[in-house]
Amino acid sequence: MAALPISLQKISLFLERLPGIGEKTANRLAMYLLRLPENDLKEFAEHISELKKRTKLCKRCMNLTEDDICSICTDEKRDRKTITVVETVLDLLSFETGNIYNGTYYVLHGKIDPLNNIGPDDLYIPSLFTRLEKEGRDVGEIILATNPDMEGEATAVYLMTKLKELQAERNFSYRITRLAYGLPIGANLEYADYGTLGKSLENRRDF
Amino acid sequence: MAALPISLQKISLFLERLPGIGEKTANRLAMYLLRLPENDLKEFAEHISELKKRTKLCKRCMNLTEDDICSICTDEKRDRKTITVVETVLDLLSFETGNIYNGTYYVLHGKIDPLNNIGPDDLYIPSLFTRLEKEGRDVGEIILATNPDMEGEATAVYLMTKLKELQAERNFSYRITRLAYGLPIGANLEYADYGTLGKSLENRRDF
Repeated sequence: MAALPISLQKISLFLERLPGIGEKTANRLAMYLLRLPENDLKEFAEHISELKKRTKLCKRCMNLTEDDICSICTDEKRDRKTITVVETVLDLLSFETGNIYNGTYYVLHGKIDPLNNIGPDDLYIPSLFTRLEKEGRDVGEIILATNPDMEGEATAVYLMTKLKELQAERNFSYRITRLAYGLPIGANLEYADYGTLGKSLENRRDF
Repeated sequence: MAALPISLQKISLFLERLPGIGEKTANRLAMYLLRLPENDLKEFAEHISELKKRTKLCKRCMNLTEDDICSICTDEKRDRKTITVVETVLDLLSFETGNIYNGTYYVLHGKIDPLNNIGPDDLYIPSLFTRLEKEGRDVGEIILATNPDMEGEATAVYLMTKLKELQAERNFSYRITRLAYGLPIGANLEYADYGTLGKSLENRRDF
């Protein structure tokens, strides 16, 4: 590293802090940046230094936005009676890039994880219920789309219980659903793990 | 993507241009940037926008530097009689991080690649010979450390021929050497490709 000029070293060290980027990749990326046109670098630098100032959370769904309410929540073509609850904005993006969903979202920004001391109040769970208390009557379905791992599952169960409590208390009529588990498309039975295979058997459908 | 605020989208699109970074990784990195302290982002942005202005090539060895001559060429503890010729600054860094070499370098910034129309004059080869014409008498060894692929090999052979010509012409006494080929440390014979295995047999040593 000492062989590199300081300015390049600093960029490389910064890049190394990013997830999935080690020293070699960081050096390679820094080297690549050096080859880009100066204007592109300047523009990128401006976006970086403005990033935190400009970006905030949508007041309705906690998605990232530059305004008070995000582009999904303001989109009138969206089915606002359906709310999909996801762990992160990246999960939301997966639905969006697939073009498979036309409802709205709610982003928890994490999952309940007792081993790491993350409880419901550390996530955006209380504000979900504040919203539902006001708007619950207009909601048709809440799809729990946390990840199929232990913490995601625990989060879904916690939400389900709380959502049912609220429903009983206030006489709301929303459905509470969960994403289906099963074999991924294109999978090979031979290589499927038994957890997935078991789920795909358990959730089999008439043909 | 439209689900993200513009400032974040622009950062993500920029990151996607970097080698080895696809859309998903770019989004993940952009999201991570959002969580960093604002000061760190500001500092990074400054380094990025200053990068091209500050960095230039060392006049002696074409390594990257902020001064006229790089830190390796100015280091008096280095063995200046030995010059290792590498394709890229990243290759130079591999030697440096290993702490296995105490000589100097010369960076070609590429390799001869006829299929992509890259000839010797597109690399920093002419300036290597300009340097050697002046200083060749003081050079003890030139180690050709281009990569063990077709283009790297062609570059090494080209340099070797030219270096021998210059040597004969000017009565220089430098050795011209090439990195050894063989089994990588920790390798398993069973999985070695036959090219490597052949080389390791051909270059076997007395024990």
